Amino acid sequence: MRIGIFGGTGPAGTSLGARLASIGHVVVLGSRSKYRAMESRDRLLVVNPELADRLESGDNAAAAECELVVIATPWDSAATTAQDHAEALAGKIVVSMANALVRVGHEFQPLVPPRGSVAAHVQAAVPRCRVVAAFHHLPAKELGNLGSPIDSDVLICGDDPAAVAQVSELVAAIPGCRPLDAGELSNATAIEAFTAVLLQLNGRYRTRAGMKITGIA
Amino acid sequence: MRIGIFGGTGPAGTSLGARLASIGHVVVLGSRSKYRAMESRDRLLVVNPELADRLESGDNAAAAECELVVIATPWDSAATTAQDHAEALAGKIVVSMANALVRVGHEFQPLVPPRGSVAAHVQAAVPRCRVVAAFHHLPAKELGNLGSPIDSDVLICGDDPAAVAQVSELVAAIPGCRPLDAGELSNATAIEAFTAVLLQLNGRYRTRAGMKITGIA
Repeated sequence: MRIGIFGGTGPAGTSLGARLASIGHVVVLGSRSKYRAMESRDRLLVVNPELADRLESGDNAAAAECELVVIATPWDSAATTAQDHAEALAGKIVVSMANALVRVGHEFQPLVPPRGSVAAHVQAAVPRCRVVAAFHHLPAKELGNLGSPIDSDVLICGDDPAAVAQVSELVAAIPGCRPLDAGELSNATAIEAFTAVLLQLNGRYRTRAGMKITGIA
Repeated sequence: MRIGIFGGTGPAGTSLGARLASIGHVVVLGSRSKYRAMESRDRLLVVNPELADRLESGDNAAAAECELVVIATPWDSAATTAQDHAEALAGKIVVSMANALVRVGHEFQPLVPPRGSVAAHVQAAVPRCRVVAAFHHLPAKELGNLGSPIDSDVLICGDDPAAVAQVSELVAAIPGCRPLDAGELSNATAIEAFTAVLLQLNGRYRTRAGMKITGIA
């Protein structure tokens, strides 16, 4: 599949882009500046030269032309960036992976966006898209470390079951990732907020925490 | 330790009471009605007669006399029940395990209480107590099934590190439970909300989902 990433130059977007390219997709790392996207691509290829044929770079408009688009921008520009490319995105699956968090002292706290989640905000901004929330809890560094599988479940939610199923297939192809259907997009509120707890644990235990659900065979 | 449970007649309170008694504590199952508490105790002893010496019943006032008190009432009476017994609770550790959830159609959605969490609401109601949030994600049935260990981490947060440490010790003694220090009480917001996702998964996968954090040795 051809996958575009808005904000493909940040830690989450870069790592996810590399990982998706490593399992056979063609990934367009997008950015507000196509030159920054080129830089990100160059940096990725130093470590993972085998991805050269499957990693492209461009501005966000180029990323928006892909079949499926992931929004990996900072949380407060996720909806506006999607809206800027509403025409190109219409009818497509748009994956929201951002978490609205703020650092207060030495703690991370979730911010609850007015519509309950970043994903719901994005869905409202591009109502003709099928927004799916996923990838919130994967530590970026593990995601980008292509030599190792990821030891984490990926909670996926959205209001279009076919879109959730397609993103689940994408996730299932990543070694060590298990997709779990977490229901409607309204569940993104709790999924996004929970990332604050994982970051909290990262600091407390000097680790990069992931999450697994027990009781599901 | 002598542990009191407010709302010790509901599924969560009954199961936790049985489990804590099974690891050697004396548990007072409290309720608004001491007769309902007697009934709950009787029911527990049919299945677990070996707990007879360590399970007591009483009204919530009797539970409030214990060294440590767990609030297992429905979420919307957690703070008022604590406040009713503020004098007896002063200076003690009060464990909040309630989640504010609402069923919307076939989905569970988190409600965000005005102070961000049930635990923060309780802390505001009894400012002289040391409130610790814990036990939100344990499936009640597994908790009460004393023959089997529990396969789940327990995220614990609170503003008094000594109180968090003491609750962590309590949790660590439950077979299969790992206590994790999730920081200040403000993190209860995301921890409580996340329970909605677990209930969602229970319905979707016909299971009783728990949660484990990866990346912490």
